[in-house]
Amino acid sequence: MWGDLGPVGRAAATGGYRRFAWTSEDSTLRHWFTGEATSRGLDVVTDRAGNVWAWWGNPDAGTPGVVVGSHLDSVPDGGAFDGPLGVVSAFAAVDQLRASDFRPAVPLGIVCFSDEEGARFGIACAGSRLITGALPADRARALRDGDGITLAEAMARGGHDPRHVGPDPETLRRIGMFVELHVEQGRGLAGLGRPVAVGSSIWPHGRWRLDLEGEANHAGTTRLADRRDPMLDLAHVVTAARASAGIVGCVATVGKVRVIPNGVNAIPSRVTAWLDARGPVEHDVRSVVNAVATAAGRDPVEESFTAATDFDAALVGRVAKLLGDAPVLGTGAGHDAGILAQAGIPTAMLFVRNPTGVSHSPAEYAETADCLAGVDALARVLEDVAG
Amino acid sequence: MWGDLGPVGRAAATGGYRRFAWTSEDSTLRHWFTGEATSRGLDVVTDRAGNVWAWWGNPDAGTPGVVVGSHLDSVPDGGAFDGPLGVVSAFAAVDQLRASDFRPAVPLGIVCFSDEEGARFGIACAGSRLITGALPADRARALRDGDGITLAEAMARGGHDPRHVGPDPETLRRIGMFVELHVEQGRGLAGLGRPVAVGSSIWPHGRWRLDLEGEANHAGTTRLADRRDPMLDLAHVVTAARASAGIVGCVATVGKVRVIPNGVNAIPSRVTAWLDARGPVEHDVRSVVNAVATAAGRDPVEESFTAATDFDAALVGRVAKLLGDAPVLGTGAGHDAGILAQAGIPTAMLFVRNPTGVSHSPAEYAETADCLAGVDALARVLEDVAG
Repeated sequence: MWGDLGPVGRAAATGGYRRFAWTSEDSTLRHWFTGEATSRGLDVVTDRAGNVWAWWGNPDAGTPGVVVGSHLDSVPDGGAFDGPLGVVSAFAAVDQLRASDFRPAVPLGIVCFSDEEGARFGIACAGSRLITGALPADRARALRDGDGITLAEAMARGGHDPRHVGPDPETLRRIGMFVELHVEQGRGLAGLGRPVAVGSSIWPHGRWRLDLEGEANHAGTTRLADRRDPMLDLAHVVTAARASAGIVGCVATVGKVRVIPNGVNAIPSRVTAWLDARGPVEHDVRSVVNAVATAAGRDPVEESFTAATDFDAALVGRVAKLLGDAPVLGTGAGHDAGILAQAGIPTAMLFVRNPTGVSHSPAEYAETADCLAGVDALARVLEDVAG
Repeated sequence: MWGDLGPVGRAAATGGYRRFAWTSEDSTLRHWFTGEATSRGLDVVTDRAGNVWAWWGNPDAGTPGVVVGSHLDSVPDGGAFDGPLGVVSAFAAVDQLRASDFRPAVPLGIVCFSDEEGARFGIACAGSRLITGALPADRARALRDGDGITLAEAMARGGHDPRHVGPDPETLRRIGMFVELHVEQGRGLAGLGRPVAVGSSIWPHGRWRLDLEGEANHAGTTRLADRRDPMLDLAHVVTAARASAGIVGCVATVGKVRVIPNGVNAIPSRVTAWLDARGPVEHDVRSVVNAVATAAGRDPVEESFTAATDFDAALVGRVAKLLGDAPVLGTGAGHDAGILAQAGIPTAMLFVRNPTGVSHSPAEYAETADCLAGVDALARVLEDVAG
């Protein structure tokens, strides 16, 4: 499976992946998923948001199913594992169960969520947010990418009718439980001598936009005292975000910046910066945003915020015990599993060790032995909860 | 003339001008220049670099001519006056001289320099640098714009054969003297109660590029201690540039930034920043660049540097006296006049008062009465030196 996925959306210049929602690369990945599912005799259903589900057994027959899977899209120049590891491991776990003649007592599903990273339209977990209603359909359809193309237009070009986008109770009713396997995106496991951990919670996290206004002027002839240079405000924002996050034990990042007019010899008229802030405690995350607001001299615009999400405590405990008292870790990364948990679906996650902790980068990596341990863990969880 | 120029390359969103070299806007401006010249019976000649010259009298007959003029291109979202004021005033001054039955003793030329701002290909004063040899032809032809189009390709599309680009002694031989009128780009005149000043010198100035390397990683899961975030280096660079410039009496600007991958939830792998630094004394400008190098932990790449340029002292004194002891000012802005002065041509400048000092911005402005005073000053200079 990795051999088929390897070349899709890979940028020669960086070695990273550019697999953005509703592009031709995305379409190739959907076809790959459907092919893997049908070759195993699974029934493929696309929901109203364009998420694709492959079922072993009939989830409409009465008992809802146990679902595993993840997503196939990427951030700009992302790594090979973030998303695909969960999908590939799901197929491999099903193969392993079948090889051992396991017969599930409930339907088993594998999901490929659409647009998890939000790299193109700015909203992460758009596919799961749409079906749970966390993202209103009208707002989603009107989202625009960097070229001004709306999500509705992009969906239509990708062969999905945007008119049907919206809450999808029929799909949600089929999900009795969701377990998402994912490469770890930090180094929580690296020092513990274990290949797999169980996710307990997702930190509160959000994105804020800062519109730093200045006055365009000539870089050579405008006295320093006469300047209103928003690049200085950006420097204050970056410094304040890092310092305040360090003080309260959060993480904060300014990873995206837009400068207007962005000319070497012109003082900018405007710098727009985006702040990503997360941490174990919402109050502390808010204090980072407040420190940044003070540094910027203006309130940031909150583009999204997700409160702390705890996965199902009973399920987390059961899975950890099953896997030989696996480590239980929280994470700063958002996932579709968090969106489903907020919608009341019993949910947990498995994290596969990442020796460097690097993610959202071409250097993202996991050892093959650890990936196989992840598949085995996923198969044992399915055996336990669907047996 | 202003009525014809007003709409060309004007961006509706900002009210600023986007007149970049060898675009269709640039072509429209060249046609306008040629039309104004031929309607006055002037002979139009395009030189090897694509600069356009309109002659009253034959500059090849023996005596070299007196040239006035400026440029018509702009920075991104630039103002209406930077460049065009010098060209329009040149035509108006010729009209004024003819209305008074003035007969020049030497040929008079009006020049429209090509690509003064360097907004598209990164090298300011490309047209004048090419004909004097300050910019090698092969280097120029290979310059690329943001879309990867070379200057050679852009010239060819604009109807100018790039093979002939290079030093142009025939053109330079025709220029006995050059006086460039320009809107002031600071507030040196604003407090002096005078509409026109004489330029004495151009500060040493340059552009440096900083490639700040980091490590792409996930914004939510990477501990602060594990990060190599080049956005923090950018903050240090911006702060150091401003602080050191303030200490030594220079100006320094970071007006252009490129972030890779520029994703909200990704620590950047690289931030590229451009530094523009200028000041009255070269040693002080270099000390700003050194302070920035220390803040960045690496040496910037010098993309261009122009040493201090003094205009012709005798000519500056003569013009200042002629204009009733007009103020004599240095400037931090580069101009084609500076390039010609470096090539040994007697050169001076006239600056028209800018009440706010704002330039390289849609808000750039000069009072009509001051513009008319500029035309009158230019006509008097021509009368004096070409009489």
